Amino acid sequence: MRRGVMAGRFASSGTALDQFWRVEELEAPARERLAAATAEFLSGVPGDGRTLSANRAAFARWQFEPHVLVDVSLRDLSTTVLGQRIELPVMIAPSALHRLYHPDGELATARAAAAAGTLAVISTSSSYPLEDVRAAAADFAPWFQLYWVSDREMTRYLVERAHAAGFAAICLTVDAAVPSWREHELRAPFVFPDGVIQANLPGGPHVHATDLTWESLAWLRSLSPLPLVLKGVLRVDDARRAVEHGVDGLIVSNHGGRQLDGSIASLDALAAVAEALDGSIELYMDGGVRSGSDVAVAVALGARAVLIGRPALWGLTLGGEAGVARVLALLRGQLDSAMGLLGAPTLPSLTRDLLRPA
Amino acid sequence: MRRGVMAGRFASSGTALDQFWRVEELEAPARERLAAATAEFLSGVPGDGRTLSANRAAFARWQFEPHVLVDVSLRDLSTTVLGQRIELPVMIAPSALHRLYHPDGELATARAAAAAGTLAVISTSSSYPLEDVRAAAADFAPWFQLYWVSDREMTRYLVERAHAAGFAAICLTVDAAVPSWREHELRAPFVFPDGVIQANLPGGPHVHATDLTWESLAWLRSLSPLPLVLKGVLRVDDARRAVEHGVDGLIVSNHGGRQLDGSIASLDALAAVAEALDGSIELYMDGGVRSGSDVAVAVALGARAVLIGRPALWGLTLGGEAGVARVLALLRGQLDSAMGLLGAPTLPSLTRDLLRPA
Amino acid sequence: MRRGVMAGRFASSGTALDQFWRVEELEAPARERLAAATAEFLSGVPGDGRTLSANRAAFARWQFEPHVLVDVSLRDLSTTVLGQRIELPVMIAPSALHRLYHPDGELATARAAAAAGTLAVISTSSSYPLEDVRAAAADFAPWFQLYWVSDREMTRYLVERAHAAGFAAICLTVDAAVPSWREHELRAPFVFPDGVIQANLPGGPHVHATDLTWESLAWLRSLSPLPLVLKGVLRVDDARRAVEHGVDGLIVSNHGGRQLDGSIASLDALAAVAEALDGSIELYMDGGVRSGSDVAVAVALGARAVLIGRPALWGLTLGGEAGVARVLALLRGQLDSAMGLLGAPTLPSLTRDLLRPA
Amino acid sequence: MRRGVMAGRFASSGTALDQFWRVEELEAPARERLAAATAEFLSGVPGDGRTLSANRAAFARWQFEPHVLVDVSLRDLSTTVLGQRIELPVMIAPSALHRLYHPDGELATARAAAAAGTLAVISTSSSYPLEDVRAAAADFAPWFQLYWVSDREMTRYLVERAHAAGFAAICLTVDAAVPSWREHELRAPFVFPDGVIQANLPGGPHVHATDLTWESLAWLRSLSPLPLVLKGVLRVDDARRAVEHGVDGLIVSNHGGRQLDGSIASLDALAAVAEALDGSIELYMDGGVRSGSDVAVAVALGARAVLIGRPALWGLTLGGEAGVARVLALLRGQLDSAMGLLGAPTLPSLTRDLLRPA
Repeated sequence: MRRGVMAGRFASSGTALDQFWRVEELEAPARERLAAATAEFLSGVPGDGRTLSANRAAFARWQFEPHVLVDVSLRDLSTTVLGQRIELPVMIAPSALHRLYHPDGELATARAAAAAGTLAVISTSSSYPLEDVRAAAADFAPWFQLYWVSDREMTRYLVERAHAAGFAAICLTVDAAVPSWREHELRAPFVFPDGVIQANLPGGPHVHATDLTWESLAWLRSLSPLPLVLKGVLRVDDARRAVEHGVDGLIVSNHGGRQLDGSIASLDALAAVAEALDGSIELYMDGGVRSGSDVAVAVALGARAVLIGRPALWGLTLGGEAGVARVLALLRGQLDSAMGLLGAPTLPSLTRDLLRPA
Repeated sequence: MRRGVMAGRFASSGTALDQFWRVEELEAPARERLAAATAEFLSGVPGDGRTLSANRAAFARWQFEPHVLVDVSLRDLSTTVLGQRIELPVMIAPSALHRLYHPDGELATARAAAAAGTLAVISTSSSYPLEDVRAAAADFAPWFQLYWVSDREMTRYLVERAHAAGFAAICLTVDAAVPSWREHELRAPFVFPDGVIQANLPGGPHVHATDLTWESLAWLRSLSPLPLVLKGVLRVDDARRAVEHGVDGLIVSNHGGRQLDGSIASLDALAAVAEALDGSIELYMDGGVRSGSDVAVAVALGARAVLIGRPALWGLTLGGEAGVARVLALLRGQLDSAMGLLGAPTLPSLTRDLLRPA
Repeated sequence: MRRGVMAGRFASSGTALDQFWRVEELEAPARERLAAATAEFLSGVPGDGRTLSANRAAFARWQFEPHVLVDVSLRDLSTTVLGQRIELPVMIAPSALHRLYHPDGELATARAAAAAGTLAVISTSSSYPLEDVRAAAADFAPWFQLYWVSDREMTRYLVERAHAAGFAAICLTVDAAVPSWREHELRAPFVFPDGVIQANLPGGPHVHATDLTWESLAWLRSLSPLPLVLKGVLRVDDARRAVEHGVDGLIVSNHGGRQLDGSIASLDALAAVAEALDGSIELYMDGGVRSGSDVAVAVALGARAVLIGRPALWGLTLGGEAGVARVLALLRGQLDSAMGLLGAPTLPSLTRDLLRPA
Repeated sequence: MRRGVMAGRFASSGTALDQFWRVEELEAPARERLAAATAEFLSGVPGDGRTLSANRAAFARWQFEPHVLVDVSLRDLSTTVLGQRIELPVMIAPSALHRLYHPDGELATARAAAAAGTLAVISTSSSYPLEDVRAAAADFAPWFQLYWVSDREMTRYLVERAHAAGFAAICLTVDAAVPSWREHELRAPFVFPDGVIQANLPGGPHVHATDLTWESLAWLRSLSPLPLVLKGVLRVDDARRAVEHGVDGLIVSNHGGRQLDGSIASLDALAAVAEALDGSIELYMDGGVRSGSDVAVAVALGARAVLIGRPALWGLTLGGEAGVARVLALLRGQLDSAMGLLGAPTLPSLTRDLLRPA
């Protein structure tokens, strides 16, 4: 049977992971396995969760108009990001403290990404030292996510370490200048479990800088020759300013709905920014990607690649490296099928013309 | 009583079928009667089922603006498709393995269609030999639905048999170049029950060709003099290309929502294609038709006829030939009432002008 | 207390009716009191009930933009219809067989309408002879709703009787040329209870004429000097044609959602027709009116008056004349309050400018 | 941890109030604590509650497009209203009889407002004498809400007392010329509990004037030199007229959805009025404000400040002065966070450009 062809692609892990065929199926069992506070930390959003909902709803507002009678016998899902080739247009978004989810933490995440032919963005707040994570990623050099803390020397120290360790880019988070009003955290502040630490930060948590401006970027760029990516840009004018300031890439993102409740959906922002900037800078997006069809929509709207946050952590919780691998394999398989059915066998052929508003 | 006039049209079958007065009422009892795997096979769609929902929702987005004081004493529901007269603008869509639903399989389907004065499209994967099904259809020559398999000689063999048996057209499915990502099938691949076979395919299932292009059609047309219909076209540009390549008819379809989740609704695609092509090719549609009002909407938007898929199988499950006949009788009765109330006593008088967006 | 001023307007009936302060509150208890078949007959609609829902939803799509600092110390709710003064812009819509709901049937309905200072439209299928109903209506001459039956002499007979009895207008229903496909009636045809008859029709039910056209109206007008109102017009072009054929008034209506499922909402049709015709004919509407605010919306969109159907029957069921009176009193009280709060103390001051789309 | 920074701002009251981190969390426990009739009085709205829902829904129709890389190390939430400086753009809306909710009544409300650095609008129907309330408000002079009663001398008496007591403005309610049709009050008229009185009104309740016009304002203005604010304006033309008549400020309001059901949402009206008037008069709004993000939206759409009604009463019910203080502190904290995340550290930098329709 034809469907056997597709299922056959998945090497069985011989574990309960084999039962998952949709990314969202991992959420409930992952949350169940975690301590309540960790599950809350993973999912928590401020306010009414409007932005979280908006991120998902934005995908449902697009429909496909597939082409027929296109030769799709060979599908090619690969692309490059900042010059580095990846085998599918999906990266791992940065998130804190992967040891909360699995003892192997970021090591497992980096290994799974590399095995799938892609890269992970490693958080300032990673629970393994960035050098160890870099080593685990083998041929797929990760990016280093930077929280610019108020102590400039600490910021310099982090960038220099990332550069020395062989990271491929600095990814500065710009949408968290002040704390979000997350009711659940205000009610019950999150306490680090025993053995889970911010491994890159000597002396514990630091306060974020609140006075950064576009002019601050020059100093940051002076610290290393690494390309600079901004994460958290949502506006066309800010995106244009990033180009003027020599930024190399933008992750259009609202922090997974965890910062300002009511922010525009990432996908909507991507569509506007991509249309306005028209290729003058590499664009990525995160927020709400849960299927290969979602990846196809984001690429058709102008993303060079997408990033997944919570889905990777669900996989990590349920199976460590194998769990993250499962999530990536599902997205790959779904994207491959969608591209075949769309008559779009390569990423460049995934054009805006294949979409229409629902 | 006036309502007696209408009810009186339905010859009682003396069976439980007499209780059904809406097509959708058949779904639940039909699913209940089937083995779970077959029910799943019948209903199954990939992803979130967005396309399935969109197919239905598209009808609800149109409202009627009926004319009054039109003489509707005589209603004429007949039309022609590729030159063949049918008594109502409803055909049976192709679907696999009707023996899954009733021992008489496609024979019952073809008989019920012919008795109602219309035709069925018979699948490559029919469970009775196409020659036997043709014989059962009496005066209403069916169309043959073709899956172009990767073995060209097998494709030639199927077309030549259909021609020799007296089918009226070849209907090539073009929206299934690669397998759909149907989670339920990936989890539990469908196994043919004992005695159910693909009766037209010596040697069992074949792999679909994935490299077809518009240029491939010339070879297909060389195999027989039968008119060619493409099933699965959703785009205006593809529809135009079909006209340029001499295709005789198009079934605007998204495969009942079973292929690419997120595809545009069939009815929405029909409206766009019909407006753009303006009569240069016969257009039919399937996907979401559940009532005579739905038929009226589709005709008003440009369909020469519609096709019903799952509803025919619900009827087949519940009553064999009589069940399919019941479904067609309901649609006929409802369409007749709707045309009378719309002040549109013939199909050509069912114009776009009678609709407005809801 | 101020609110006492308003409540004080309602003379207590000393019955359970005093508990109702919203029209919709009467529906459930009324249905409960009726035999199941009668309740079904009262509420029944074809198909998915889309038109019934649309009728209600249409009101919710308008919002008020009230004026402030207008002298509203005197509110005047009166108007004229075909030259006859009524004290509030609400009439009773025609419906069959009021004896199904209360032994006093149409006599109670007509009395309650007259007591409230308005008129009722009496159905061809009334369960009391039209002459008796006319007498009950005292100073408020009812209109006679005509089903044009296929026997022309019977039609002539009905019109001549209505004229002789002193009805003020003939109201021809034009949206019921063929029977609606009402599943519940097809399944279980309605049987008249003992003692309930169509009192105006000697020899029992007659078949509706299905061949009426605009040209047929001349003969109808020749039968009496009464003004002619068409009930069931929904289109601008049909409304224009009515003006050309000398029709005196139009009830924009979809028969309470009981005929063609999927028809445009009455209120939406009213807005379009009123805008296009701009006062060249008197317009009324029915369908979905449940509150004084609804009346205000309809008047602001161009209705000279509205008609209520099911609400009057709920009242009739629960309290005979007093029940219908309660419904009319609620609508009057609510409309009076709404006009005061809108800064629109007269019906002519209820202008389109007070509304905006929601 | 960073989030500690934010939580630390809230001085613990050592009471159950500390558990509330969203304003809406106070509603259910407050209603539970109140007598049923008082809870109904607090929440009650007429009709379907459409306006109440619309007030909330209007906020959800706006999304934020935040700026990044703006120096937000210092946030300034202060503004002036009619020349009086307030520390956050949130005032307390007028409402009747605060003693229904807490023995300290309006005294507690005024103290909490002043402690938070803002002012309250005190109702004609306050349950403490306006002079006592003024004294409780310390440095933040309240405004006096006026119901213009039909007895002009009583109106004069109220205005003169407010002026003498040191109120900062007269705020005339103009959206309550006639009683609203509130079913729950018609069914069970509200009875004042023992000890709760309209302390400003000798001789008990008075009937509202129903004949006020724009011309009436001159006499009102002649009674005192206090600035005049109109509460309840929703239309652009009425707002323009207010400017022409020398009114000093407008509260765009629909009376919390308590008067005309179906009125436009306050926020929608604010947007229209602010765009049309372009700064020629101070604009405030109430209706549906439940979070700091809501405040940010209203300010971005043109409000100089917002007013909260029911939320203050929930707080008053649960904790007297401390409860009202908690509500104001939550709004302040949320607004502060939102302004930081929006890249808008001052109220003037909260511009329309930060919003887009959802």
